[in-house]
Amino acid sequence: MRAKITAQHRPHHATQAAAAPEVRAAVPSPTVPSPLPGPAPTTGPITWDELHLAGRNHEAPLESLRWPVSPPGLHYVLTHFDVPDVDPVAWRLRFGGVVSHALALTLSDLRRRPRRTLTVTLECAGNGRSRLEPRPISQPWDLGGFGTAEWTGTPLAPLLAEAGVEPEAVELVFEGEDRGFQAGVEQRFARSLSIAEASAPDVLLAYEMNGAPLPPQHGFPVRLVVPGWYGMASVKWLSSIEAVAEPFAGYQQAVAYRYQEDADDGGAPVERIRVRSLMVPPGVPDFLTRRRTVDAGPTMLRGRAWSGAGPVTKVEVGIDGVWAAAQLEPPVGPYAWQEWSCPWVATRGAHRLACRAHDAAGNVQPEEAPWNLQGMGNNGVQTLEVEVRDPGAAS
Amino acid sequence: MRAKITAQHRPHHATQAAAAPEVRAAVPSPTVPSPLPGPAPTTGPITWDELHLAGRNHEAPLESLRWPVSPPGLHYVLTHFDVPDVDPVAWRLRFGGVVSHALALTLSDLRRRPRRTLTVTLECAGNGRSRLEPRPISQPWDLGGFGTAEWTGTPLAPLLAEAGVEPEAVELVFEGEDRGFQAGVEQRFARSLSIAEASAPDVLLAYEMNGAPLPPQHGFPVRLVVPGWYGMASVKWLSSIEAVAEPFAGYQQAVAYRYQEDADDGGAPVERIRVRSLMVPPGVPDFLTRRRTVDAGPTMLRGRAWSGAGPVTKVEVGIDGVWAAAQLEPPVGPYAWQEWSCPWVATRGAHRLACRAHDAAGNVQPEEAPWNLQGMGNNGVQTLEVEVRDPGAAS
Repeated sequence: MRAKITAQHRPHHATQAAAAPEVRAAVPSPTVPSPLPGPAPTTGPITWDELHLAGRNHEAPLESLRWPVSPPGLHYVLTHFDVPDVDPVAWRLRFGGVVSHALALTLSDLRRRPRRTLTVTLECAGNGRSRLEPRPISQPWDLGGFGTAEWTGTPLAPLLAEAGVEPEAVELVFEGEDRGFQAGVEQRFARSLSIAEASAPDVLLAYEMNGAPLPPQHGFPVRLVVPGWYGMASVKWLSSIEAVAEPFAGYQQAVAYRYQEDADDGGAPVERIRVRSLMVPPGVPDFLTRRRTVDAGPTMLRGRAWSGAGPVTKVEVGIDGVWAAAQLEPPVGPYAWQEWSCPWVATRGAHRLACRAHDAAGNVQPEEAPWNLQGMGNNGVQTLEVEVRDPGAAS
Repeated sequence: MRAKITAQHRPHHATQAAAAPEVRAAVPSPTVPSPLPGPAPTTGPITWDELHLAGRNHEAPLESLRWPVSPPGLHYVLTHFDVPDVDPVAWRLRFGGVVSHALALTLSDLRRRPRRTLTVTLECAGNGRSRLEPRPISQPWDLGGFGTAEWTGTPLAPLLAEAGVEPEAVELVFEGEDRGFQAGVEQRFARSLSIAEASAPDVLLAYEMNGAPLPPQHGFPVRLVVPGWYGMASVKWLSSIEAVAEPFAGYQQAVAYRYQEDADDGGAPVERIRVRSLMVPPGVPDFLTRRRTVDAGPTMLRGRAWSGAGPVTKVEVGIDGVWAAAQLEPPVGPYAWQEWSCPWVATRGAHRLACRAHDAAGNVQPEEAPWNLQGMGNNGVQTLEVEVRDPGAAS
């Protein structure tokens, strides 16, 4: 279940990224000094730092895949620093830099602008990190770094025109209110998008999640939502947007969130969500080990699948290594996951279940994920060992 | 920071329980075979099972103590098995056993009954478990197993009269829809209360949390809320109530949730929440280590405190071992936490902050918590190391 480093895995991520037609021609990345954004990866035991991060940051339990929109509190949460307590009355969104008309917008200003709701599946770029071997030391996601929500806000693109972004601008830098240290660098969380990416009509300045004001941990009062991209692009607690004439070299852009082979590799930037499918674990769990027991007989395997490179075109379910196509439903929106289901007649004994998705760009989940230094984009196939018993065996 | 076993700690919990006047004369516990409810406690590294539990079950981040009611999604969640997906239309609450009129109530039936809202602080009995040494292997809470919510529902007590609980009944058994295995025992999660405890006017059958239907992970459609008790009593996804003539000997009553010295000790039952205070960590964190940096100068230390044995009467803040009384606010309700604050003029260098609470029953938080085999009720004083820098040092 844990992917090992082998020579043939290393180049996979580059191949996969190249196959996605939606990947826009990026502004050339700045030359990166590439300090390691944390301790060296390890094959050793889980550290206390990892345990504490796992407690603070919330995984979606896999059974939450039953709901088409993640119920409140079951969407994944990653907070780099502390959840800030932002006064929505005093809050302003400042839009400056190389623009002809700097703006300072209130929450009411944003709410008066055109309103748009999008159902978007977001995933943390580090989802699946703890399954890599060696294991990069950071937020130790198992597979629950995902969620789907209805985000309501106003499109960003018209604001670019109103601010009068100058032709020499190459990127917009989005900065949040959350601040702290990472790898010795004091910072507010900040990420950039190219002008073309930021101008996409579906990039939102969101102020509602599932019809209610954003909860504090999801970016209250306003966050960016960049559909199709891993979650780091959707900057929470957004406080400023700055048009810049040089590619942004901030920590979360130039050091973190890169597909690095090793510390000497500047690495490719982490961008769109790689294709993934996950299964609702069938049967019932053991409290501690989470091992599953399933009653023999017909059972319906279900789950959801998504990709930032386009619709999912096929999901396959593997039973003891034999793959069969699942029934795949259309997405509820262009950026939302798709439900799949596959009947299974469970027979007594131990079985190994798996699922894998293909997307319209031709990507397919690898059996073992491409290893990289930061543990990004691990979309390796989910496998699940279950023990099937006679229904009469229930105690 | 991690409590060690020392001889003088072992008897503390018994002393503390005896000091709480609210502890009712309990029905004598059944003789318990005391199988160990999990692997032996360890001084070894964090296990994968613990890491996976930490991912599934959600801690409240300590900065969420800033809010008088935990924001949606920041209340702690412990799910023993899987979050069940309950159809609220088909759902019935069955009330049977030694009663003269068995009942089967729909959700509408409950909503038509008298409606009551209570603000209640809940805490997991295992909160702080991972700080014990040796460390019991179970959900590895740091300090975030807490939350406060406005629970709306109908009082349970009148239903006891309507069902006609017979005089020979000694307890009510509350069973939830969630099921699975624990320590080899297949079960639905079930807990009991004595008739006297269940008759308390503030025990609710709750169907709303913070003004909205219960989220799935908090017990949708209906859960029990037992104010003042650790969370295991507030059975989620409630499906049946059974009046029984013998004390309930189910797994979560007779094996789990006991203050056991060792595996041969039947142990005292875990009941009311021990007095505790927690502090919002001042300054800013490091992403990985969560170490805090504070700017020199005046800063306000804040937090909340609570006890299941009555109001909190005093909170003290310790700065480098010197204790001073904090300003303590009244509770917003009889079962809700109380805010405290304490000004501090931070001077450059390393400092050790702490807080401890006293309650009306005379209980005070111990510096190191009483060790017990299951890691229950660890209310040891929170301590926090911070580094204070000159404000000009900000990078």
